[in-house]
Amino acid sequence: MIILLKHEAAQSDADEILEQIASLELKPLYMPGIERTVIGAIGDERKIAQLHLENHPMVESVTPILSPYKLVSRELYPKDTVVNIGNIPVGGGNFTVIAGPCAIESGEQLYKTAKIVKEYGGHCLRGGAFKPRTSPYSFQGLGLEGLKILHNTSEKLKIPTVTEVIEVQDVKDVEKYASAFQVGARNMQNFRLLKALGQSRKPVVLKRGISATVNELLLAAEYIVAEGNPNVILCERGIRTYETATRNTLDLNAIPYIKEHCHLPVIVDPSHGTGVRSFVEPMSKAAVACGADGIMVEVHNNPKVALSDGQQTLFPEQFKQLMVNLKPFIEAAGKKMP
Amino acid sequence: MIILLKHEAAQSDADEILEQIASLELKPLYMPGIERTVIGAIGDERKIAQLHLENHPMVESVTPILSPYKLVSRELYPKDTVVNIGNIPVGGGNFTVIAGPCAIESGEQLYKTAKIVKEYGGHCLRGGAFKPRTSPYSFQGLGLEGLKILHNTSEKLKIPTVTEVIEVQDVKDVEKYASAFQVGARNMQNFRLLKALGQSRKPVVLKRGISATVNELLLAAEYIVAEGNPNVILCERGIRTYETATRNTLDLNAIPYIKEHCHLPVIVDPSHGTGVRSFVEPMSKAAVACGADGIMVEVHNNPKVALSDGQQTLFPEQFKQLMVNLKPFIEAAGKKMP
Amino acid sequence: MIILLKHEAAQSDADEILEQIASLELKPLYMPGIERTVIGAIGDERKIAQLHLENHPMVESVTPILSPYKLVSRELYPKDTVVNIGNIPVGGGNFTVIAGPCAIESGEQLYKTAKIVKEYGGHCLRGGAFKPRTSPYSFQGLGLEGLKILHNTSEKLKIPTVTEVIEVQDVKDVEKYASAFQVGARNMQNFRLLKALGQSRKPVVLKRGISATVNELLLAAEYIVAEGNPNVILCERGIRTYETATRNTLDLNAIPYIKEHCHLPVIVDPSHGTGVRSFVEPMSKAAVACGADGIMVEVHNNPKVALSDGQQTLFPEQFKQLMVNLKPFIEAAGKKMP
Amino acid sequence: MIILLKHEAAQSDADEILEQIASLELKPLYMPGIERTVIGAIGDERKIAQLHLENHPMVESVTPILSPYKLVSRELYPKDTVVNIGNIPVGGGNFTVIAGPCAIESGEQLYKTAKIVKEYGGHCLRGGAFKPRTSPYSFQGLGLEGLKILHNTSEKLKIPTVTEVIEVQDVKDVEKYASAFQVGARNMQNFRLLKALGQSRKPVVLKRGISATVNELLLAAEYIVAEGNPNVILCERGIRTYETATRNTLDLNAIPYIKEHCHLPVIVDPSHGTGVRSFVEPMSKAAVACGADGIMVEVHNNPKVALSDGQQTLFPEQFKQLMVNLKPFIEAAGKKMP
Repeated sequence: MIILLKHEAAQSDADEILEQIASLELKPLYMPGIERTVIGAIGDERKIAQLHLENHPMVESVTPILSPYKLVSRELYPKDTVVNIGNIPVGGGNFTVIAGPCAIESGEQLYKTAKIVKEYGGHCLRGGAFKPRTSPYSFQGLGLEGLKILHNTSEKLKIPTVTEVIEVQDVKDVEKYASAFQVGARNMQNFRLLKALGQSRKPVVLKRGISATVNELLLAAEYIVAEGNPNVILCERGIRTYETATRNTLDLNAIPYIKEHCHLPVIVDPSHGTGVRSFVEPMSKAAVACGADGIMVEVHNNPKVALSDGQQTLFPEQFKQLMVNLKPFIEAAGKKMP
Repeated sequence: MIILLKHEAAQSDADEILEQIASLELKPLYMPGIERTVIGAIGDERKIAQLHLENHPMVESVTPILSPYKLVSRELYPKDTVVNIGNIPVGGGNFTVIAGPCAIESGEQLYKTAKIVKEYGGHCLRGGAFKPRTSPYSFQGLGLEGLKILHNTSEKLKIPTVTEVIEVQDVKDVEKYASAFQVGARNMQNFRLLKALGQSRKPVVLKRGISATVNELLLAAEYIVAEGNPNVILCERGIRTYETATRNTLDLNAIPYIKEHCHLPVIVDPSHGTGVRSFVEPMSKAAVACGADGIMVEVHNNPKVALSDGQQTLFPEQFKQLMVNLKPFIEAAGKKMP
Repeated sequence: MIILLKHEAAQSDADEILEQIASLELKPLYMPGIERTVIGAIGDERKIAQLHLENHPMVESVTPILSPYKLVSRELYPKDTVVNIGNIPVGGGNFTVIAGPCAIESGEQLYKTAKIVKEYGGHCLRGGAFKPRTSPYSFQGLGLEGLKILHNTSEKLKIPTVTEVIEVQDVKDVEKYASAFQVGARNMQNFRLLKALGQSRKPVVLKRGISATVNELLLAAEYIVAEGNPNVILCERGIRTYETATRNTLDLNAIPYIKEHCHLPVIVDPSHGTGVRSFVEPMSKAAVACGADGIMVEVHNNPKVALSDGQQTLFPEQFKQLMVNLKPFIEAAGKKMP
Repeated sequence: MIILLKHEAAQSDADEILEQIASLELKPLYMPGIERTVIGAIGDERKIAQLHLENHPMVESVTPILSPYKLVSRELYPKDTVVNIGNIPVGGGNFTVIAGPCAIESGEQLYKTAKIVKEYGGHCLRGGAFKPRTSPYSFQGLGLEGLKILHNTSEKLKIPTVTEVIEVQDVKDVEKYASAFQVGARNMQNFRLLKALGQSRKPVVLKRGISATVNELLLAAEYIVAEGNPNVILCERGIRTYETATRNTLDLNAIPYIKEHCHLPVIVDPSHGTGVRSFVEPMSKAAVACGADGIMVEVHNNPKVALSDGQQTLFPEQFKQLMVNLKPFIEAAGKKMP
């Protein structure tokens, strides 16, 4: 921990802080400068954090040295983690495709779409039963009925499933009916939900919040892992910036950053990341190329009538093309479809 | 609704869309141009939204004409709404000061701080029992025990209270022990929580999400009001931008914007909005000046040992000064303390 | 300077860096930790910057301790600087109003507008002769002819003037015809222009770039002052964020931040900062309240026909109201009109 | 053009605007609604723009239908443009690699680096003689001497060159000594510079401003093309967002967006786009995959001593690896090295 004192700090302020650090049996370091005094504290930073030195009126800033996450960090666990959704591996040399409609609208719609996903080579089925929507006047999902449709479709077509959970009270139901949880962007910092999912052993696809930093995403993953569930798959899905030409700005820089700092698998959602149907294929290829372990894309048997996010949803024929056109890039990346 | 077709759209695409609009008994308008065709639809836009015309492959964009919120809109309800927290009015010519610690740490800490708030002229006491924290290793709040401390302090000192609720299952407890709910920035789009609060009649202080647009804030308020609770107080608390000199960027433009478009009271949180103790007073004055109905600030009997957000928390003496120094600005704004 | 080594750095990397620091006759500090090694360097940070330690493959990050600007810093010059535009002071207890049209369109337009500015109590006249416009098909300004009109109007009405300079080759002309230079947001980091203005002694109103941090603004001011011109007035005019309800997000947090770190006067441009006519008055009041030394606003004798930025330009009657309504806030702030 | 009137607009306001539209011999369309009136104007939107209807106090918003650029638009010129830098094509099925140091530091440094670029398969040499730097105390480039070194190196090694021009007065010198101009991010909206470059016939690599929208980038290109120079190469180099884990956020969404709307070639700068040496290779691959026509990367014979941007500059061995590892992705994309 590096503590920078204010210009006007007195010697007594420095002494007070040095003493506090020593009281925790940490090693204090005193660096008086001409214009400012800097104090270092060597040892377990979580201990030092308890001192809340940033509250001191003569402290200008407190800069931690170590990353604030531990369990998800590659420094501690250098090897890539592989997470299985049903029988489908994510990570470890695989490039996994999770596809399906934004929302589950009916048994027929989901079945038809799932058949398309399976036929053209998709590995997992996605589909939302609970839809958090910006407007109270938009379609809010089928709820429990939707979960049952999902389960049914999964059984019939032998395809594992991913679906969003938006509240602690639904965790049990989703765990029962789906192969994996999805935590949506709006819930990335719903810490109680993260803790509840940490109690499960089913995999969690954790989407980055639209204004979350990559480090906040890793801290959110740390919540889940710290509770005992190591099966977390990170998902970059675009962030909110000033650019309005696309719905979000897909931050692919996050992929090599995560790969360098974290051992968990990471996938990309180019549907939400762009908001534009025709950009899904080029950004899926880019995801492969920069090192992602898979993609999650929206496809619908008839996007013209989709009840949500239709403009970013692939037509069946487009999904087919995507799967064909991704292949050479997956090979170039030295990966394979699971 | 204005529907812009793609350059390559055929006459049959236009016809199809015009027919769909007419089928809902809305008035379609056909505007063929040299380079692009534009279609208008006049009537209830929520009806047209059901058509999901944005999904059509030949539609470039769909632009709504009307604001997506109704009940919170000033067009429908031109007069200012006044919301009461306990016996304290917010809105309607009052400038209300809600103050207290970020987190409730103990009975003693809250009582001492509440006395300071009351003595120097604050109107309501704030303090969190449930603390959503970015890191799993930070202090997470006292929970139910904290709520009871809050209630106790409120009774003893006759001061109404505001406290954060972070999940549906806690709504009943918070309703029982506090005068008003606070919805934190991370939960602004927790739609189930909003709906649950819509069932209550206690006031809701709804904080803007750190990456929420003002219109998304108004839509979130619409969720609560649409469920039957008209007692919503909006709160600007800073947004996330590229600027790192301050913790957040306080968006005071939002105040005149909200005042023009919405009839609900709106307050400002300069503590989170700046993250810096010494900026709280100037930004509180700015809040008065641009038309806000109050402020919510962090004060602690001993900020040096505060368990969260200490660096933005006022010392008792600073809070006293703030209350004195705000007065001439409140007068200049033609308002009064309640 | 705090140098954080990578996890995998060897002892020899630390030694190499410690030696380099010592070679500059600076004091190196060695802080080996369990997970990472930290190295401190005490002394003139500009010297250390020459080592470019951030380039070293085993260096994770280099964090400077001191602010990168010197001459504009309040640490070195604790007293407020007052800058005079013609005979009008900016700073030091004054609240100065600079007003006029976005662009000079004709002698008649400028004269009529300037009379309004003067009559209702404005202190300086603004108006652009060179207009950098996003589209090549928009009005680009009258150029030299505009400067002459400005000069003429200034002479007739005895009002000092501010006008934008967009290129080094125009510095002499603007210096001849106007009382003060304005550097627009797009040119805040046009370093040659800043240096050329540093050669003049006429005041420079330096607008913050739409994506510039406050510290970058202070560094841009440092360029001018370092060349010998101490007469710099900073101007907050809104930054680009994800919010689209207003044209820009006016960052008033910047005012107390600048006041704390810098001795130069700082004004606010609520016209560009909001882009909305009706928000200019509330945000002007907020500017007074949070400590700004003045405002720069757009007013036009007939905004309906203004050739640029008309939607944010005040009608004469609105400017009159603004000047009346600002008064109690200026008094509350303990300031006076010059 | 779609003109939305305010709620409180009177019939006479609508009539006034309809008349103004008709006066330009455009076709006005009147769409009275229950809550708001909408007016359409069909015909050349540049004509309508002259009316400045957005200035009208009863106009809420004016939404153009057509894109504001013409000459760079794919609607008008559907075929891909190929631009040649010296004898090297950019666009049209080629994937072109422009590489070199951030700044030209000496003849020896540039020659050594250029040899590395050439030997490992790079096509063009980059290197800056004029360096716009945030701090007045940083290295500012060798100026004209740097241009001569660049020219010299180009002649000796038969490699075309790209170098930044930062002011109109340098255009002639850069044209004389380099094969192509580069316009840096800070100058993307230096409109005089764009116009001056429009007078040349040498290619212009136009970098996106760090807070410029893609449409603003296309409008900047329009400035150059409108003056007569069709040889523009667009360059995505990262935008400024709230994310600080990487220096900038590389916006690869911009590539498919530009490809859909514009016929000019577009390249990616992963060095500035990430600011991190080890992320250059994965993001270069992503650039290929999403459809870019090339990359511009920083490489230095000895990055440890580079005078600027060293931490994002490749070591010679890393550049060699990059060129080898890019090949399968270029093949997968159906492209070839020129």
